[in-house]
Amino acid sequence: MSLPRIAIDAMGGDVGVRVMIDGAAEARRHHDRFKFLLVGDEARISTALESHPNLREASEILHCEDVVGGDEKPTQALRRAKTTSMGLAVNAVKRGDAGAAVSAGNTGALMAMSKLALRTMPGIDRPALAALLPTLGENDVIMLDLGANTECDARNLVQFAIMGAAYSRIVTGREAPRVRLLNIGTEEMKGTDQLQVAAAQLRAATGLAMSFDGYIEADKINRGEVDVVVSDGFSGNIALKAIEGAARFVTDLLRNAFTSSLRSKIGFLVSRPATELLKHHLDPNNHNGAVFLGLNGVVVKSHGSATAGGVANAVMVAARLLEEDLTQRIAADMAALGEDRLRDSK
Amino acid sequence: MSLPRIAIDAMGGDVGVRVMIDGAAEARRHHDRFKFLLVGDEARISTALESHPNLREASEILHCEDVVGGDEKPTQALRRAKTTSMGLAVNAVKRGDAGAAVSAGNTGALMAMSKLALRTMPGIDRPALAALLPTLGENDVIMLDLGANTECDARNLVQFAIMGAAYSRIVTGREAPRVRLLNIGTEEMKGTDQLQVAAAQLRAATGLAMSFDGYIEADKINRGEVDVVVSDGFSGNIALKAIEGAARFVTDLLRNAFTSSLRSKIGFLVSRPATELLKHHLDPNNHNGAVFLGLNGVVVKSHGSATAGGVANAVMVAARLLEEDLTQRIAADMAALGEDRLRDSK
Repeated sequence: MSLPRIAIDAMGGDVGVRVMIDGAAEARRHHDRFKFLLVGDEARISTALESHPNLREASEILHCEDVVGGDEKPTQALRRAKTTSMGLAVNAVKRGDAGAAVSAGNTGALMAMSKLALRTMPGIDRPALAALLPTLGENDVIMLDLGANTECDARNLVQFAIMGAAYSRIVTGREAPRVRLLNIGTEEMKGTDQLQVAAAQLRAATGLAMSFDGYIEADKINRGEVDVVVSDGFSGNIALKAIEGAARFVTDLLRNAFTSSLRSKIGFLVSRPATELLKHHLDPNNHNGAVFLGLNGVVVKSHGSATAGGVANAVMVAARLLEEDLTQRIAADMAALGEDRLRDSK
Repeated sequence: MSLPRIAIDAMGGDVGVRVMIDGAAEARRHHDRFKFLLVGDEARISTALESHPNLREASEILHCEDVVGGDEKPTQALRRAKTTSMGLAVNAVKRGDAGAAVSAGNTGALMAMSKLALRTMPGIDRPALAALLPTLGENDVIMLDLGANTECDARNLVQFAIMGAAYSRIVTGREAPRVRLLNIGTEEMKGTDQLQVAAAQLRAATGLAMSFDGYIEADKINRGEVDVVVSDGFSGNIALKAIEGAARFVTDLLRNAFTSSLRSKIGFLVSRPATELLKHHLDPNNHNGAVFLGLNGVVVKSHGSATAGGVANAVMVAARLLEEDLTQRIAADMAALGEDRLRDSK
């Protein structure tokens, strides 16, 4: 089977062409059956490719000079979908010229362009932004939505659960990933009406490839006891950022503590391998690559300040989702479920 | 000036009478002008007081046998307001027999009883639950609401901001505490309508004893750059628990990392003072004592599983708020503000 290509927006992100090309090259070493479409300034891409013959032989360059700005409003960026590296990368997926697009550019613009070009899948009302977070368990946990939809109704939440479960089956290999709705308590009457209706529908629905068991509170997200945490985009974004901030807070405290006395400094040096392990677990680059789920095509957002290793992770997420055909899986799940079953279950 | 008494629900919480009495005794050593009303089983309280003559001489016991259950529904608990230790402690504040009540019992029941007995202050539509969180800066940050109100309108958020600022002036000594609304971005058009309206009103309002400057994202809560973070109860609860969970996640990772090799174990032992400092910062007992703001009287919730040190912290929060007359401060701020100015500012 020949795999679809991966389109890389080589211009997006805070760091520029080199880090995107270095990252793509690293990803290709792990997924060497893939070919690439590198979108951006041809001269700079060619220069960056000089150190990566393995990527160069697998790549075509699509030249363009226009770039979406980091602070640009999505509506503004949309007008330049045909001329910017981001727009052209997404459009390559639309045309079938690539199966996935990876960009480190402006999230809002990428979402808007992807929605407009790729449209949502049959049965899905709104796409959601999903990411992997580290846990104490064997697998990462998938969280969605992380900010694509500020407000969501029960129907959106149910669709997010189905999409998240499909993604998690690929990540964890579980046939029925453990799915929970993010809430402020685990009792049935907790939280908003939307949450309660969505929980009732998911409990009553048959034929879902997931193990749904109600609510999860935000302090349990990283325990490794669930595979998918579903929320509206506002709460999900708050939870994600709170986790990032708290992890940074603790490591900052730790650094201060370890440099506060000679004795601590010595301890720190002796225990270097332990703190390296910690750093490895918490480094966002190791979990880079948020996915827009629910579109007719795979779009992966790499963090704007990701390192080459982080970009490689994002590209590998795209590769993995193409190899396992996530889009087709979600379509099949939605079809298997049927609209009526969800409606009846209310 | 004679200070009002502090009523202690000696029966609430997971651990029982001894930890509440030990905690109150420790708090009194720091605030020795206070007298106490200890509510609960007289025999058990008397036994616990034997090791604390300093508290015994300052206390009256109000005997009762009935206790609100940890899982009891607030509506159910409300019916026993006159017979339970929690209800009697709150009612002591209502009658003017105490200035503050401290309980480690069921949060929902405590909120319901406090609202019914004490009523909200003039100008305040809904009380909010506020707590102190550790930061990298000099002061703790105050977060509210943490779950008393699942959904809030702009008017609620503005009132929370005013109450939080009054509390923060006591904690930080700043005349104009730095207040921000919790949101998923800092641009003006981000987030829900309620947030945008609340931000516009706070920006336009005059005479507020705070420095308001728009939004804060959840990853910045612990940086020490703001004094008050305002949100609806759903988002606030999500953020608080996400921070708690992430802090525990990192320390768990750290413990695993430090015990993974002999070299790390030695490093850990050598750097003990550093990790103790870390533990001190992150121990929730050191930040125990959430306050219901906006009632005609002070009610402090101690965590159900708090240690005696944690209870002491909660009691000291109550003592501090009485010494500084928080209720009067909020009333004065609301009066100074005036209803019209807020309405006009929209």
